[in-house]
Amino acid sequence: MKNFKITVSYDGRRLAGWQRQAEEAGPTVQGLLETALSRLCDHPVTLHGSGRTDAGVHALGQVASFTTDSARTVAQIIQGSNALLPPEVAVLRAEEAPEDFHARFSALGKRYDYELLTSPTRRPLYHGRAWWLGPGLDWAAVAAALPAFEGEKDFAAFQSVGSEVGSTVRRLHRAALSRSGPETLRLSFIGSGFLRHMVRAMVGLLAETGRGRQSAASIPELIASGDRRRSGPTAPADGLYLAAVFYDADELAGQVAALTGQAADLL
Amino acid sequence: MKNFKITVSYDGRRLAGWQRQAEEAGPTVQGLLETALSRLCDHPVTLHGSGRTDAGVHALGQVASFTTDSARTVAQIIQGSNALLPPEVAVLRAEEAPEDFHARFSALGKRYDYELLTSPTRRPLYHGRAWWLGPGLDWAAVAAALPAFEGEKDFAAFQSVGSEVGSTVRRLHRAALSRSGPETLRLSFIGSGFLRHMVRAMVGLLAETGRGRQSAASIPELIASGDRRRSGPTAPADGLYLAAVFYDADELAGQVAALTGQAADLL
Repeated sequence: MKNFKITVSYDGRRLAGWQRQAEEAGPTVQGLLETALSRLCDHPVTLHGSGRTDAGVHALGQVASFTTDSARTVAQIIQGSNALLPPEVAVLRAEEAPEDFHARFSALGKRYDYELLTSPTRRPLYHGRAWWLGPGLDWAAVAAALPAFEGEKDFAAFQSVGSEVGSTVRRLHRAALSRSGPETLRLSFIGSGFLRHMVRAMVGLLAETGRGRQSAASIPELIASGDRRRSGPTAPADGLYLAAVFYDADELAGQVAALTGQAADLL
Repeated sequence: MKNFKITVSYDGRRLAGWQRQAEEAGPTVQGLLETALSRLCDHPVTLHGSGRTDAGVHALGQVASFTTDSARTVAQIIQGSNALLPPEVAVLRAEEAPEDFHARFSALGKRYDYELLTSPTRRPLYHGRAWWLGPGLDWAAVAAALPAFEGEKDFAAFQSVGSEVGSTVRRLHRAALSRSGPETLRLSFIGSGFLRHMVRAMVGLLAETGRGRQSAASIPELIASGDRRRSGPTAPADGLYLAAVFYDADELAGQVAALTGQAADLL
């Protein structure tokens, strides 16, 4: 029995999220991958993702694992699944992992990026791929608000209503603002884990801060309140990208270090 | 009577090209814009584009012009048409132009960019937006081939078969290769005008050069032959972007100068 780790990218616009669902919900990433891998391995494959992503959310480096008795090589898994998958989903890498590797339980952290479009009019080539905020936001205020989110905190105020998880405490290693293109900015978040809608809720609050409707100074108290109703609107799925899942402490530390101080040129 | 110049962007993936057609061909950029502008101006509007783009081709700065008796302001034209247009098309700018301005006849030149994806596996977020060539091409050979296309030449060998135009002589001011992202390269072309499929035919031949199937040294003779059958495959529409249309000689010269020497870091 072999245990495979695969790294996956997808364009979430026409997908009903990561998790396999009843067919009427539309194609899901897990469903499409399981169908392709089951055909390739000649037996039903159950895929374990590092976590779910919602409908409309993209991935540059989602990770999943599965076990198989098939004799397929790494190269056959990559090429075979990409031939069977629709254009919206692709396997970027595959590797044989230790027996005890599990995409979710072995993960040390994740990085999410959120793309913000600042052009005066909407841009068709960013439709479904960035949140169009327009010009005129106070990005210095947004950058000043970011440290308040960093550290080990109870993020209950940034969890979608109705979620049920054991603990809402997470460690956010770094939140950073950088320029990603002539008309786009990127908010990046590296953390030990994220609650459902947590990134989109933080981005929604940060946009309110940039618009002057929320002061950076009030954010610590707002986090402490644990009250989702006080923490602003949820940003749309369009701009959200699962950028990477970390299984190696050095790689995680390296990415945290690389994010530090990126916003300097914007302010 | 006012003469308006508008600058338009579109994502060509689900559009049947620029030119208005019978409805069964699918929505066209000209058709969508004329419908929106006619509603906005309360009379049938005829739009003159700088030129056609084919199905699947994108635009960052297509230009078109129309005349109207309507009292609509520039701001109303931008906001009103963007509210009426689907997400695939947007008006970026509008301005009142001199009476004799015509988007096609007044144009001094155009810039096209072509995006090439060099990753080892396909990338869902570039589907329909770049040509996936994979790694391992000889980009130094591609860069070395570019000067052969520059200057005033008969480009009959790079015209789609069956095209009928008066002259196939065009001036290509500059062809350049640059890095556009971690896994993408860009071929940029600024010229006085382009024949139908000319950029895609040049890119197809350049890809053959990068793959070692065509020598850079043979390109001048191939251009001189005027024979489309000898000049290689046509690159797909996916990677092609109409980047800008120039109506000002200084702006054109500035963009030509900015393209010069960009490939140095790739070689």
